[in-house]
Amino acid sequence: MTEERTKKTDRMTEAERDAYHAEKMKKKKAARDKLVAANQAEKGLVIVHTGKGKGKSTAAFGMVFRAIAHGFNVGIVQFVKGKWGTGERDILERFPDQVSINAMGDGFTWDTQDRQRDLAAARTAWDKAKELIADPNYKMVLLDELNICLRYDYLPLEEVIEVLKNKPADTHVIVTGRNAKDELIDIADLVTEMTLIKHPFREQGVKAQAGIEF
Amino acid sequence: MTEERTKKTDRMTEAERDAYHAEKMKKKKAARDKLVAANQAEKGLVIVHTGKGKGKSTAAFGMVFRAIAHGFNVGIVQFVKGKWGTGERDILERFPDQVSINAMGDGFTWDTQDRQRDLAAARTAWDKAKELIADPNYKMVLLDELNICLRYDYLPLEEVIEVLKNKPADTHVIVTGRNAKDELIDIADLVTEMTLIKHPFREQGVKAQAGIEF
Repeated sequence: MTEERTKKTDRMTEAERDAYHAEKMKKKKAARDKLVAANQAEKGLVIVHTGKGKGKSTAAFGMVFRAIAHGFNVGIVQFVKGKWGTGERDILERFPDQVSINAMGDGFTWDTQDRQRDLAAARTAWDKAKELIADPNYKMVLLDELNICLRYDYLPLEEVIEVLKNKPADTHVIVTGRNAKDELIDIADLVTEMTLIKHPFREQGVKAQAGIEF
Repeated sequence: MTEERTKKTDRMTEAERDAYHAEKMKKKKAARDKLVAANQAEKGLVIVHTGKGKGKSTAAFGMVFRAIAHGFNVGIVQFVKGKWGTGERDILERFPDQVSINAMGDGFTWDTQDRQRDLAAARTAWDKAKELIADPNYKMVLLDELNICLRYDYLPLEEVIEVLKNKPADTHVIVTGRNAKDELIDIADLVTEMTLIKHPFREQGVKAQAGIEF
């Protein structure tokens, strides 16, 4: 489509191009207005950020800030301890009245290598997640890296799906992590896959840096 | 791979499964530690968030907050006016000493339908972007929706590429927007494509909501 547009507009004078542009944009605006008019429903969403690329937690973190800006309370459960850097915590802690941050006890996966401890920690974190989701004071709940717990069978998938399906109607729940289960995608409203196209770690030996990774 | 793992662990006792897990995680940790040890370079990155999915600007916005948390100054140029809701602006304005927000004059595309005005606005915004990138006080510069200006030939691609290639070594520049040009991807360090898997606008008639879209 871009190709075609380029060729077409290349043969035009500036004035013709301006007119062509105005016409095209008018159509776009009409389509957009129609869509906006048609979409009037408001509902709490189940949102999933998955895929191997970066930005899954970061985009969730951006949504948390949007919610804070609107005066909403936000509950956060980190299912992988230590994955967040000091950056996120420090800045979220500047909004203590609006944000509840809960890190899963002992972290998990490669650092502990202790499955039983992980299982117990996952259960505690999930109990906290359920509490936050049920609490009408929280308009948004972020379950960061929950997908990894589901992937390792640290939590029963059926129970997690049931809780998300029966969440309060107004509450947005964001689930992040690669390898999202199909069952989760099925019940989600908004699913985005972050795909890695290029990464400086592997290609250039660049380390994790403040502001980018943490 | 998940399939295989499930089958294998399904035949195990709990104790065998714990041991299997510990072994696997030990290997993962070793691989991870090796990668971290190998990656010692620090450099300002050219980061691109593209694709049709959501989260391009939101993830950039999350990075801006990380940078703020680390005490860095951040420059922002919005190449599409009105795309950001009040949420982002309100909360960024709580950090006036660290953040410089600059919206492109009159907005553009479907609302104005005036190509000449758009061209002038794009140039002004780009001049501001160049100023922020050149300023050593800014550790991060976000060029939100610059890709759309490049797609519509509102700015000369060669000039943009030259500026990004010659940016100060320590500065991170984030460019967002769908349809990133190949030339931009070529010079970028970190490129993520956001892919839409499921969206409630089209599928359920749900409207843009506070905290999610703005």
